[in-house]
Amino acid sequence: MERTDRREPIALSELKPYAKGAAYSYTLGAFPTFELLKVKAESADRVLVHSSYRDEGKLLKLCSELKVPYSANDRLVARFGGKDNCFALGVFRKFQSRLNGERPHLVLVNPGNMGNLGTIIRTAIGLGIDNIGIIKPAADIFAPKTVRASMGAIFRLSFQLFESFEAYRRECPAHLLFPFLTGGKVPLGPGLAPPGRPYSLIFGNEATGLDDSFLKIGAGIYIPQSDGVDSFNLVTAVGIGAYVFTESTRNIFK
Amino acid sequence: MERTDRREPIALSELKPYAKGAAYSYTLGAFPTFELLKVKAESADRVLVHSSYRDEGKLLKLCSELKVPYSANDRLVARFGGKDNCFALGVFRKFQSRLNGERPHLVLVNPGNMGNLGTIIRTAIGLGIDNIGIIKPAADIFAPKTVRASMGAIFRLSFQLFESFEAYRRECPAHLLFPFLTGGKVPLGPGLAPPGRPYSLIFGNEATGLDDSFLKIGAGIYIPQSDGVDSFNLVTAVGIGAYVFTESTRNIFK
Repeated sequence: MERTDRREPIALSELKPYAKGAAYSYTLGAFPTFELLKVKAESADRVLVHSSYRDEGKLLKLCSELKVPYSANDRLVARFGGKDNCFALGVFRKFQSRLNGERPHLVLVNPGNMGNLGTIIRTAIGLGIDNIGIIKPAADIFAPKTVRASMGAIFRLSFQLFESFEAYRRECPAHLLFPFLTGGKVPLGPGLAPPGRPYSLIFGNEATGLDDSFLKIGAGIYIPQSDGVDSFNLVTAVGIGAYVFTESTRNIFK
Repeated sequence: MERTDRREPIALSELKPYAKGAAYSYTLGAFPTFELLKVKAESADRVLVHSSYRDEGKLLKLCSELKVPYSANDRLVARFGGKDNCFALGVFRKFQSRLNGERPHLVLVNPGNMGNLGTIIRTAIGLGIDNIGIIKPAADIFAPKTVRASMGAIFRLSFQLFESFEAYRRECPAHLLFPFLTGGKVPLGPGLAPPGRPYSLIFGNEATGLDDSFLKIGAGIYIPQSDGVDSFNLVTAVGIGAYVFTESTRNIFK
């Protein structure tokens, strides 16, 4: 979709290093920048490349087709590109969209790490879960580090931030809730999601997980594990949990 | 197991910040330090704590039982503890052990990132896979960052470094090989591992994956994914793949 709102892009001279409160953020690197353009061009403000960038033709052509301003600017790419060797970046306006009440959801309660949040978004989109609710406080979903870890999958995501889990619940009352916690009573396995009803897979913070109050809202699920570890890492737990649920309901929601 | 070899610990004055070529490394933080002491005390050289450390009694008691030297030393904890707020650390001798020819293996071909490698070790141990072959070049398995990401699970691991995949194959010729690659022809699912025969789950580097030559060594496995992502992140792929194999052979190897 090309940019249709005629909104003027932010002037180059006005761009500043990423800030949580800003209305815009950056895609660092060619891959997430292409994803931005291909999937969410209406949010793309402009593209900047370094003179060392080798694959200019394709990116320039896509920007031209979509009417997204394109500039070569070594100084700004170095300034906003971060520590990684970044030769192309996009500037995009932050967005938010309502969760779809009929699709499965992933709900992250207080995710604390930007890299993990981005990787979880990539995992969820890869498994076909494209709706994520995030309970605040939470790592910044628009920080360039999150966007990069998502490999641009964030642009395919519907997500909403909520002040509390109760606020999520009020917004989406129909979903069957599956909190994941090591104290859960139901082992992860196929057949847990009833056909025809949307479900929410709920995961806690990296350090603390979900507290036991979540055992009251639905069947607490645990991933069977050896005694050799205290728990699985959050990214791993979401990957395994979401795989099992989507794999066993593959024909219901597609 | 207490330290029985009467080897003198490295003198405090001789300790240096971690180096890849050194014979020793560090566990940063109380959790991996307890794991070191509980699981692999014979490799534990000494424990250092900061005067702010709150849970001293338990750690001191364990060190005393195991005859592992224990010192309070704010300066050295600050020096070796890294950027994280680390109040307790262990010094341990690097170790290596032969892979068990009868157990399932995880084989990592050129893993590039220490945090990922540590998280994968944690995941594997959690799922009951305690043998990992690593094909060089590879991220440093003993770097404090790897050890910390493993949450100390590294001390429960048998692992071997190999110069090439062929060298691994010569060492372990009986294992049925399952390379994971996006170009694989067999979708991940239960029932792939034949009963009674050990198997190897093989994963490539974060950026490049396995090259197509691995399609010749065994059934190439892919994890079904949406078009919205290029691939899964390595940690996620290992978590999902190892979960499915261990879950469907749970009664065979335990």
